[in-house]
Amino acid sequence: MLDNILQAIDHGQKESIEGLKQFLRIPSVSTDGRYAADIQRCADWLAGTIREIGLDARVYSSAGHPVVVARNDHQPGRPTVLFYGHYDVQPPDPLDQWVTPPFEPAIRDGAIYARGAADDKGQVWAHLQAIRHWQANGGLPVNLVMLIEGEEEIGSASLPAFIESHRDLLRADLALASDTNQYARGLPAISYGLRGIVFLEITLTGPSHDLHSGIYGGSVPNVANVLAELLATLHDKDGRVNIDGFYDDVLPLTDAERQMWRKLPFDEARFAAGLGLTPAQLVGEAGYSTLERQWARPTCDINGLTSGYQGPGAKTIIPATASVKISMRLVPNQDPATISRKVEQTLRRRCPATVKLEINGNTWSPPILVPRDGAPIRAAVEAYKIGFNATPTLIRCGGTLHVVPQIKSLLGIDTLLVGFGLPDDRVHSPNEKFDLDALHGGTRTAAALYQNLAQPDSFK
Amino acid sequence: MLDNILQAIDHGQKESIEGLKQFLRIPSVSTDGRYAADIQRCADWLAGTIREIGLDARVYSSAGHPVVVARNDHQPGRPTVLFYGHYDVQPPDPLDQWVTPPFEPAIRDGAIYARGAADDKGQVWAHLQAIRHWQANGGLPVNLVMLIEGEEEIGSASLPAFIESHRDLLRADLALASDTNQYARGLPAISYGLRGIVFLEITLTGPSHDLHSGIYGGSVPNVANVLAELLATLHDKDGRVNIDGFYDDVLPLTDAERQMWRKLPFDEARFAAGLGLTPAQLVGEAGYSTLERQWARPTCDINGLTSGYQGPGAKTIIPATASVKISMRLVPNQDPATISRKVEQTLRRRCPATVKLEINGNTWSPPILVPRDGAPIRAAVEAYKIGFNATPTLIRCGGTLHVVPQIKSLLGIDTLLVGFGLPDDRVHSPNEKFDLDALHGGTRTAAALYQNLAQPDSFK
Repeated sequence: MLDNILQAIDHGQKESIEGLKQFLRIPSVSTDGRYAADIQRCADWLAGTIREIGLDARVYSSAGHPVVVARNDHQPGRPTVLFYGHYDVQPPDPLDQWVTPPFEPAIRDGAIYARGAADDKGQVWAHLQAIRHWQANGGLPVNLVMLIEGEEEIGSASLPAFIESHRDLLRADLALASDTNQYARGLPAISYGLRGIVFLEITLTGPSHDLHSGIYGGSVPNVANVLAELLATLHDKDGRVNIDGFYDDVLPLTDAERQMWRKLPFDEARFAAGLGLTPAQLVGEAGYSTLERQWARPTCDINGLTSGYQGPGAKTIIPATASVKISMRLVPNQDPATISRKVEQTLRRRCPATVKLEINGNTWSPPILVPRDGAPIRAAVEAYKIGFNATPTLIRCGGTLHVVPQIKSLLGIDTLLVGFGLPDDRVHSPNEKFDLDALHGGTRTAAALYQNLAQPDSFK
Repeated sequence: MLDNILQAIDHGQKESIEGLKQFLRIPSVSTDGRYAADIQRCADWLAGTIREIGLDARVYSSAGHPVVVARNDHQPGRPTVLFYGHYDVQPPDPLDQWVTPPFEPAIRDGAIYARGAADDKGQVWAHLQAIRHWQANGGLPVNLVMLIEGEEEIGSASLPAFIESHRDLLRADLALASDTNQYARGLPAISYGLRGIVFLEITLTGPSHDLHSGIYGGSVPNVANVLAELLATLHDKDGRVNIDGFYDDVLPLTDAERQMWRKLPFDEARFAAGLGLTPAQLVGEAGYSTLERQWARPTCDINGLTSGYQGPGAKTIIPATASVKISMRLVPNQDPATISRKVEQTLRRRCPATVKLEINGNTWSPPILVPRDGAPIRAAVEAYKIGFNATPTLIRCGGTLHVVPQIKSLLGIDTLLVGFGLPDDRVHSPNEKFDLDALHGGTRTAAALYQNLAQPDSFK
């Protein structure tokens, strides 16, 4: 049966791409209220498309953006798989850097270019195509629940409450997500770890209004200068995060992991060049390789800075406010609540009394680490061999999937992370793309994976 | 003769106010091209009004906005005074904060409210009224040249070339401007010093595009973090500017000046409250008072900061660029070109090689300091006594008037700064006003000043 399905997938690529284009044309940007109607339209379109495949699909409202939940006919005795994906995308800015418009999908050089192509619409689409062909060929061999949300890019804030109030609907033996990457072209990967995150926004307030820098300069606090001084304390000279107690609970990398990762092909010069950098510009915590820094060490990055006059030319004011967005990526076993509290305590202690400090927008998600030798991972390894004709490697991922710890804590199950993206997909950046080979191989892998997960020992 | 003129001024206040209203109704905003026709109309109206007074007035074109130059009949043996003023105004935004519309002058609480009321139309108008009454009573006792430009609010960029190509027309023994403030209501002031300025914009560039802070965080340079670290080095713990050699040429405050300023009434609590601050928030260079910090010590203020994502909510990127606008206020004898070079050298040395540093938009103007005991200042002191019935104090001004060093370097003469505005006039802000008492006292002062400057020893 799987052979028939794989053959159908191989022959149906053109149709698959046309469908994905429709998905990508909907500008389902979750962070910006101006796209609210598009978010709703995207959820509706997705549920309709899933119904056409033969599943029961429904758009549920939540405290935030709508959630699409779909199910096949569940049969007793079969394992139940919870597929997770998201239909929302990052904002497309800066627009002028896109070669083709972000919501007008374009094919070039063997890839499809659009916002959300790899993150996560293209990967969700691979599963939907695999499921479509299974349904057309006797039906999926597992009980499937699909949970496709619209708030992943803004931290899945409404999802925990939704999962909690729909436990019965979502109950499963294992969760499955494709929102991560292959290690490289030709080297697929299963991620057994994710970094967590603490995000916060700090605003400093000084005078009640912008002041003339000639008349007042030198005699009043300049919040932008103070902010810079505060932010400069966030790292020490070795590139370590300089927050009191920040590393207290960090699980050290094992020798086995370091050796495993050292064997991965990694061309620093090429990696750097892909980012417009030279190898000498690849900086980070002393004593760790680039992959170790990305996958297994915590960070503290400024994501945005705002203060005063930012238009063309000069306006010589002393700004009334200055603010910064900061994200910290956490690793096992750092606890986000603890880190968040430590950061706040440290910053409040360091901030001079001459300005007012406010911390807002605090969101977080814990890091994840699962055993590398479980049956689900073995099922995925075999599926990749069929899907991409290559043995996958085991890696961690520097990014965060809020849903994984949410599913763990609310439904009590781990999530298998089978990623089809590639490191050069420019997710969250202009000219995001998804390789057509990745779409094809991913669809094949998903088809094989549903079969492998139907085996009796898949959840041992 | 002066008594007759002062009497005529006292009786002509109503007429003076009506004339000023006409001047204020013209929205001569210099920074915004949409007001270009109003700028021209204002220059034409002004020249026409000056001709009615009995002077020869002409609107000259320049590389930028038109310049009004007027002259009386020059007689040999008399001193020549160059009066400087500007007819352009700041933009009126934010419009919704004005009690009455910015270009519909309104009288309330003893003041005239309109954009440009104090800066600088009302002050120019005081001089024009004084001159009108002199002309109606036998003529001005000095040779007068009036230079009234339309680009002061945008840095007087075209003025140096205009002055250079009209040296003969503008040649004088002394320049005179009323574009500064009294120290307080009832305490007029002559400014004998101005701070200079160096403005620059620094941009740091790292990766070629914004990167995902999860995938890449910890392994690439974050230009916003680097910018914060660089900017944090700009001051030391005592609030001094930490640029190599920054204070090398700073002329220390003399004991006499410090004593003189210490005697000025200054209510720190009230000053702070006016800015929405507490007295404890009035920070600056250790060892100096607020007035000393504002008038006689150099500064380094961030005017604007930009990097990464600045919209609502989270976007967890590592930004590709980060930039900052900085202005440094300079004091005698700091040379702007030297300071600019030192800043650039210091920042380039401190900037890590992992990011690219660019410096743009560099503009500057030197500081000014004139002797406090010259004959022109004595003439002004006596004029204020007649005009405001109060002995003026001698102060410096923390701001910058580009024209003063321009006149000094191109025409070789100092500028006498007799200001009629008040610190609460809200120049550059909504609800700008000019006290009617200031208009009246200023007109009287100007009338007396032209007489005093006609004395044989006024330029010794």
